Amino acid sequence: MGMVDEIKISKAIVEKYSAKLMDVLESDVAIVGGGPSGLVSAYYLGDMGFKTVLFEKKLSLGGGIWGGGMMFNKVVVQEEATGILDDLGIGYENYDEKHYVVDAIELAGGLIYNASKKAKVFNLINVEDVMVKNGRVAGLVINYTPVEMSNLHIDPITVSTKAVIDATGHDASVCSILARKGGDLELKGEKYMDAPLGERGVVDNTSEVFPGLFVAGMTVAAVYGHPRMGPIFGGMLLSGKRVAELVGSKLK
Amino acid sequence: MGMVDEIKISKAIVEKYSAKLMDVLESDVAIVGGGPSGLVSAYYLGDMGFKTVLFEKKLSLGGGIWGGGMMFNKVVVQEEATGILDDLGIGYENYDEKHYVVDAIELAGGLIYNASKKAKVFNLINVEDVMVKNGRVAGLVINYTPVEMSNLHIDPITVSTKAVIDATGHDASVCSILARKGGDLELKGEKYMDAPLGERGVVDNTSEVFPGLFVAGMTVAAVYGHPRMGPIFGGMLLSGKRVAELVGSKLK
Amino acid sequence: MGMVDEIKISKAIVEKYSAKLMDVLESDVAIVGGGPSGLVSAYYLGDMGFKTVLFEKKLSLGGGIWGGGMMFNKVVVQEEATGILDDLGIGYENYDEKHYVVDAIELAGGLIYNASKKAKVFNLINVEDVMVKNGRVAGLVINYTPVEMSNLHIDPITVSTKAVIDATGHDASVCSILARKGGDLELKGEKYMDAPLGERGVVDNTSEVFPGLFVAGMTVAAVYGHPRMGPIFGGMLLSGKRVAELVGSKLK
Amino acid sequence: MGMVDEIKISKAIVEKYSAKLMDVLESDVAIVGGGPSGLVSAYYLGDMGFKTVLFEKKLSLGGGIWGGGMMFNKVVVQEEATGILDDLGIGYENYDEKHYVVDAIELAGGLIYNASKKAKVFNLINVEDVMVKNGRVAGLVINYTPVEMSNLHIDPITVSTKAVIDATGHDASVCSILARKGGDLELKGEKYMDAPLGERGVVDNTSEVFPGLFVAGMTVAAVYGHPRMGPIFGGMLLSGKRVAELVGSKLK
Amino acid sequence: MGMVDEIKISKAIVEKYSAKLMDVLESDVAIVGGGPSGLVSAYYLGDMGFKTVLFEKKLSLGGGIWGGGMMFNKVVVQEEATGILDDLGIGYENYDEKHYVVDAIELAGGLIYNASKKAKVFNLINVEDVMVKNGRVAGLVINYTPVEMSNLHIDPITVSTKAVIDATGHDASVCSILARKGGDLELKGEKYMDAPLGERGVVDNTSEVFPGLFVAGMTVAAVYGHPRMGPIFGGMLLSGKRVAELVGSKLK
Amino acid sequence: MGMVDEIKISKAIVEKYSAKLMDVLESDVAIVGGGPSGLVSAYYLGDMGFKTVLFEKKLSLGGGIWGGGMMFNKVVVQEEATGILDDLGIGYENYDEKHYVVDAIELAGGLIYNASKKAKVFNLINVEDVMVKNGRVAGLVINYTPVEMSNLHIDPITVSTKAVIDATGHDASVCSILARKGGDLELKGEKYMDAPLGERGVVDNTSEVFPGLFVAGMTVAAVYGHPRMGPIFGGMLLSGKRVAELVGSKLK
Amino acid sequence: MGMVDEIKISKAIVEKYSAKLMDVLESDVAIVGGGPSGLVSAYYLGDMGFKTVLFEKKLSLGGGIWGGGMMFNKVVVQEEATGILDDLGIGYENYDEKHYVVDAIELAGGLIYNASKKAKVFNLINVEDVMVKNGRVAGLVINYTPVEMSNLHIDPITVSTKAVIDATGHDASVCSILARKGGDLELKGEKYMDAPLGERGVVDNTSEVFPGLFVAGMTVAAVYGHPRMGPIFGGMLLSGKRVAELVGSKLK
Amino acid sequence: MGMVDEIKISKAIVEKYSAKLMDVLESDVAIVGGGPSGLVSAYYLGDMGFKTVLFEKKLSLGGGIWGGGMMFNKVVVQEEATGILDDLGIGYENYDEKHYVVDAIELAGGLIYNASKKAKVFNLINVEDVMVKNGRVAGLVINYTPVEMSNLHIDPITVSTKAVIDATGHDASVCSILARKGGDLELKGEKYMDAPLGERGVVDNTSEVFPGLFVAGMTVAAVYGHPRMGPIFGGMLLSGKRVAELVGSKLK
Repeated sequence: MGMVDEIKISKAIVEKYSAKLMDVLESDVAIVGGGPSGLVSAYYLGDMGFKTVLFEKKLSLGGGIWGGGMMFNKVVVQEEATGILDDLGIGYENYDEKHYVVDAIELAGGLIYNASKKAKVFNLINVEDVMVKNGRVAGLVINYTPVEMSNLHIDPITVSTKAVIDATGHDASVCSILARKGGDLELKGEKYMDAPLGERGVVDNTSEVFPGLFVAGMTVAAVYGHPRMGPIFGGMLLSGKRVAELVGSKLK
Repeated sequence: MGMVDEIKISKAIVEKYSAKLMDVLESDVAIVGGGPSGLVSAYYLGDMGFKTVLFEKKLSLGGGIWGGGMMFNKVVVQEEATGILDDLGIGYENYDEKHYVVDAIELAGGLIYNASKKAKVFNLINVEDVMVKNGRVAGLVINYTPVEMSNLHIDPITVSTKAVIDATGHDASVCSILARKGGDLELKGEKYMDAPLGERGVVDNTSEVFPGLFVAGMTVAAVYGHPRMGPIFGGMLLSGKRVAELVGSKLK
Repeated sequence: MGMVDEIKISKAIVEKYSAKLMDVLESDVAIVGGGPSGLVSAYYLGDMGFKTVLFEKKLSLGGGIWGGGMMFNKVVVQEEATGILDDLGIGYENYDEKHYVVDAIELAGGLIYNASKKAKVFNLINVEDVMVKNGRVAGLVINYTPVEMSNLHIDPITVSTKAVIDATGHDASVCSILARKGGDLELKGEKYMDAPLGERGVVDNTSEVFPGLFVAGMTVAAVYGHPRMGPIFGGMLLSGKRVAELVGSKLK
Repeated sequence: MGMVDEIKISKAIVEKYSAKLMDVLESDVAIVGGGPSGLVSAYYLGDMGFKTVLFEKKLSLGGGIWGGGMMFNKVVVQEEATGILDDLGIGYENYDEKHYVVDAIELAGGLIYNASKKAKVFNLINVEDVMVKNGRVAGLVINYTPVEMSNLHIDPITVSTKAVIDATGHDASVCSILARKGGDLELKGEKYMDAPLGERGVVDNTSEVFPGLFVAGMTVAAVYGHPRMGPIFGGMLLSGKRVAELVGSKLK
Repeated sequence: MGMVDEIKISKAIVEKYSAKLMDVLESDVAIVGGGPSGLVSAYYLGDMGFKTVLFEKKLSLGGGIWGGGMMFNKVVVQEEATGILDDLGIGYENYDEKHYVVDAIELAGGLIYNASKKAKVFNLINVEDVMVKNGRVAGLVINYTPVEMSNLHIDPITVSTKAVIDATGHDASVCSILARKGGDLELKGEKYMDAPLGERGVVDNTSEVFPGLFVAGMTVAAVYGHPRMGPIFGGMLLSGKRVAELVGSKLK
Repeated sequence: MGMVDEIKISKAIVEKYSAKLMDVLESDVAIVGGGPSGLVSAYYLGDMGFKTVLFEKKLSLGGGIWGGGMMFNKVVVQEEATGILDDLGIGYENYDEKHYVVDAIELAGGLIYNASKKAKVFNLINVEDVMVKNGRVAGLVINYTPVEMSNLHIDPITVSTKAVIDATGHDASVCSILARKGGDLELKGEKYMDAPLGERGVVDNTSEVFPGLFVAGMTVAAVYGHPRMGPIFGGMLLSGKRVAELVGSKLK
Repeated sequence: MGMVDEIKISKAIVEKYSAKLMDVLESDVAIVGGGPSGLVSAYYLGDMGFKTVLFEKKLSLGGGIWGGGMMFNKVVVQEEATGILDDLGIGYENYDEKHYVVDAIELAGGLIYNASKKAKVFNLINVEDVMVKNGRVAGLVINYTPVEMSNLHIDPITVSTKAVIDATGHDASVCSILARKGGDLELKGEKYMDAPLGERGVVDNTSEVFPGLFVAGMTVAAVYGHPRMGPIFGGMLLSGKRVAELVGSKLK
Repeated sequence: MGMVDEIKISKAIVEKYSAKLMDVLESDVAIVGGGPSGLVSAYYLGDMGFKTVLFEKKLSLGGGIWGGGMMFNKVVVQEEATGILDDLGIGYENYDEKHYVVDAIELAGGLIYNASKKAKVFNLINVEDVMVKNGRVAGLVINYTPVEMSNLHIDPITVSTKAVIDATGHDASVCSILARKGGDLELKGEKYMDAPLGERGVVDNTSEVFPGLFVAGMTVAAVYGHPRMGPIFGGMLLSGKRVAELVGSKLK
């Protein structure tokens, strides 16, 4: 092994991260949440050439994919979504004519890997608030997650962006902030389990819900009051792709 | 979206996971720990054709990669290890003649994605104990991690294997169990920071430390008493590859 | 002692449990809660020949029986319910003309033992949600309890069933989910202590409260607003038997 | 439903429990721990006509049986122990020539039910200390478990007995108290998984380890340093029966 | 020292406590809360010859007296209340013409000592609920406090009584139960600090607030919406004496 | 009610407490621990005319008396100690020729009331350390208990004294500090339950264990390695009286 | 080093603190909260000659200054506020024409140092309530913070004052108490991030919001519903100065 | 108020902090711990012209000064140390010929303010380990404190330095790391309270305890086994000045 130098390592890391952070303070699109729909949207938006940043609250990305159903780490995807799996090089196995089984670990790994190739991905960043200018979401107010976990009183900083995608899942956390602070947006809340209705609804209602704010994945269900669907991920993947197309056509 | 059926989804998941779990109850190699060295060894061992299983305690894989250095999510890799990055399609950027910078998210995603293609990867599995037969590590005693987190009194089950790789990092948890229960193995404990010495030591001492038990990555430092090295990952990757070669030649 | 084999033990357990779980994914009746009324209903429904599954959230069954009154582990049962005790082989002692004393441990043990002979009983399973199809409860959405205790983000799976019995006691947890998500069901909440009124009310109002959803035991009091009654168990046992008869006649 | 009276219920419970507690303050045998070996020993000792009391620390009995292996709620029993299952009316299913599968819930329920028929069983009682007179264990020092859970400073009371059985499992808690306070007793600690060796050792070394103190079940392994065995329960059941025979012949 | 016998000690304690508990299951008056007003009312009611029981939730009695003001363990009493101090043999020191200073420890000790001479005092008892018969509070539903602290699911028992005094202070916990479960009783909540108004209000409004339920001490302020007053105790003592007189004249 | 003034109340409390604290910064005797032996020693030493201060860590005094045995709030006292009860006006009831039963609440209240009449009693004060001068305990290092409970980094202050009595019970906390910091003092630790031996030992070995440091009550057992004795309090009371006599004759 | 005496040290501290506390029991102005606006107002009000007391809940002062933005310990100040920095001797660096950068540590240290020169500053004091007399805030009800952190039931004491400044930031805790207890005051709650609007609003609306109660700093935003502004502190400093001027002219 | 821009604010903070962090990655002296001795040494070393960095673990600086003695926020300083107070503009009041009283808040504020003028001060930084090269402490291994508080597995970075001062107080945390990992350094541990001996010892033994590692303040007592001294700060201040002189003369 050749020689390395601790201070060089430290400098390289501080310098490259600072540059990455300085760079995204002004972005085209900011995606909040690194689960399936957020990662897919990051991949396609980055691929279209937009300056795309994704903020994930936790240390690792992948959201609700890892645990499969009830810790049995397999998930199901419908035929309509296999094209996305093909784009990203993720394998799948036929269970019957309508249900394909995917390994949860491979799905998580593949989505993270591909998104990080196309977009600037930050983990450990909590979105505390939004910046609103002239009645339009104009940016995000961010902080390190461990700051929030430690209950320390420390101010956030601000990122400006042309479009925000709330892909935070069941919590719909960006939409919730907006609704709680008086924005004209109602969250109807996720309904009982009904997988076929839920899957269709999530894709059909992927949309802009407030000027500058788009929803994807389970956030759609939380805002529009669709049923939940459990460990089937076709709707998540397709919603992620659709929101990328919507935002892409807006920003052009 | 075509119709899906909740019960079919549940059946597909239970059936495929049970088959995956039944299958690995008798494996060629079991890797404990899904950080950089464990994932690399899983990739190369699976690629050699061995029936390889990897058990990770947490919900997500990737171990200590995600946070970069001090949450600045970049890491450094030396030139000697760039070949492994090339094998796995992970990008890197030159900082100076000896230090390459890699995005922590891309590194984590890329390692997980590739390992899951070649090996059976289980998350949420805690290794509680080892099975020893005739003075040789002959298997692992496993349980669901949330069982341990919930302090519930529930028995584990057992997996048999021809070789075990302890890639649990600083904790050296398989080695610790063995040492605590009287196995002839001493853990010298990781030393102060000295990156050049640490990097070299980890690769040089990747080895079989007890019949049937191999060490890789930071576990090597914990057992042999090497210095720690911080957010430089060349040693981790090379140690993962080397342990795969060692185990591979033993099992042939 | 004859020889045993750890891997055989593991295989036997994984195989038999997977089969048990696969089997109940489509059941006739699903009972939620393993306290006195749930266990009694499981016993009688299983005895009638229905494919009956009982899901208990905790590691052990028996619910509120174990502690007697104020940790004094004796409980009281009225004469009307002694027939059920006779059916199950549980002893009782006469205190005065209207009050019989039963050992709490024997009551718990006897109910669990008998229910497990007739129905498929699962512990450690949390019911997170219901599946509703065409305005009727059509199944349950389940997960491992330790997953919930560990606050891990992991999807559930789904069980389909022709009838659900909410026997979760004071919490009325299935009814609460339904009410919170907009089902036409109001929970009036348990009232002050009044044992004679409470006992009568619980038995008289054991019923179907929403298409496909029945209530038994203290859940009846929570839904209908009856008084609570303390460590007297006649009403619980009789309500469990009555709900079995109601469901039985519906499913025939 | 006939009328009941809250004060009568309260009086019946206080009176019957007080009498049960007063009665066992002087017992023939006190068993500590309500897992498989403790319950089996309580059944057989009570059946021999000894005044037998069992103290369990938790609210429910059954110890490590409930969770099966890794929450898959099935366990394995060898042929040698099926006679005990037959005595108690617990069903089993043949897996192969040496392994029988038992439903964990039925096993727990059946053992509790049968033990409570023959012995005085107390739950929620923590054994804090032992009473030693003339170099012999002469009693137990007990308190309510919630007192200990609440960290309240409250004195215990004392029970006298001719023999104590430590059936507390891995903790060997009575033996540990004795060893910590200077009694001539060494705990070697449970070893790695080796089911055949462990099963044999537990039965062979069921014995009196200090004047007046016997060990059964996993406590045997903890004291003698035997291997652990996982979710196979033949050894537990046979050890419970053997300790009953040993104590029975001593006390005659 | 003469010889003592552990089992005799245990028997004496179990026997005398059981008798004390059995005795109070039917009482004339039950006081909830062992702070200043509760203790004073217990003293005077017991002294009038009523069968009086006091239930305190905590291990020790004395309520908010111990800490004085801001841990400075002195409190102030007005001249009007010095007669009660004289009755109970508690010393006081003149500060100026209207303010007397009392040592908080002596006040707590003296009140507890005197109340225990006249009434049956129970500590560690939590009042979970009330018994209501014919629209009148007819008893209390009690449990051990550590049961509640340990979050164990264990039923309570019931005590019948002709009158209940809620002396639980700021929480007004008996009144709160009544109000939450639909009793015709509104809690206006304690107001800002205003010691002169608060002192007067507490004494003037000591009264029966629901058939069978009386309030004393800070509970009066919580129900009637009076100001708080801080570490001055004259109002507390006088309110305790007044409620005793009210209840006494009702029960005669 | 006459008028009172909030600021006068505050001033009276701050002024009187400050004077009390200033006064005890130089005391004749400091007793640590407000359980039975500490309170009795405070009563008799104060009665002899010594400037006596007692520091209790908790909010309330009384130590282990309150809970009786196993929350049954009665305790036992032998005939030899009834003289102390008579001195303090505490009632007792004859159980048999050697055992007298005392109500735990009355015992606690009576001891606290009487001690506070004779000595300066402080609650909420934690003794963090000792002051040693010329090889002799010369004072105590104290802080508010809530400071320690809150884990705040705040310095203590110091009290000087001619004699210290460690009456902290099982913890022997002053002795432990001394032993841990190198003082010539060994703690043998309390032994198993043996009430007759324990009672005698505690009284016989009440003594000065290090220059300036005396032990009383259960601290004697912890230092000398005597057996424990459970809810019998004769030895505690007699030890408290004896240590007062020992210290009294030293200081004269 | 000259000799010191522990008891002298203790006496000096108790005596000087008691005098400081006695002194402020009647103050001209009481400021609640030791963040930037509170400290600035304390400095200017003390400088005008008013008897000024500041109560901070935490152990250290400085509030939200320390952490800069996202732990990057720098903050920004506008040109309008540099005069205050000049008054207090705090350095700043020009970033561009409108933004000056200040080291967070120097800003915190400088504000604390200067405020403590002019006003009586207390840390570790929690304001629990207010004293209202004749519809006007007439004082504060205070306690030690660790008392609240430890959940101990201990009464507060009272401070009288001619004016109260709520400078508690986002919580607006004095205003919240007033609003919750029925005072005529509505809290509109802080809005989304909009730094220019937020900065202007905070300064413009610094005012008396209830007779005797003034607001400064982020409390202004919380009461008036202004946007938040993140790590820019000009508005905080100017609001602190303005509230001092307002209160000063009222009290003259 | 002039206009400000959120993104400019964010950029200014990220840029200035990154530059500050990059700058100190190679420092002359690194001080660990921001209590009195650390702050004084930072002031004097910075004043001598050395590139000095101070790392404090907590959000705020000041260490054990804030709370005075027992929350009475005054401290004592001897005459020998008043010169340092004069240098820093901190006031003091004469108590008697040897004891001066200082307001704890002013002392904390003044030390922080002055140190931040001369040295680069970082809060929220935890020193996890040391870098040792050729048997000499050559740097520190640092991470954000909230990372440690959140138990997240994230690598640290490294700072190189010519001298390290351990001013972490009682914990002596840098020395402890060195001792635990095999460095030739023994920690004798702080002794009982003896203020005169403690004060002298701390100043006299301020020294280099391992090549490259110096100790100051209470760390001296912890390493050399001196007595503790309580809320007197002369020794702390003088030790801080002395270590600055020692390091200064070494580095010249």
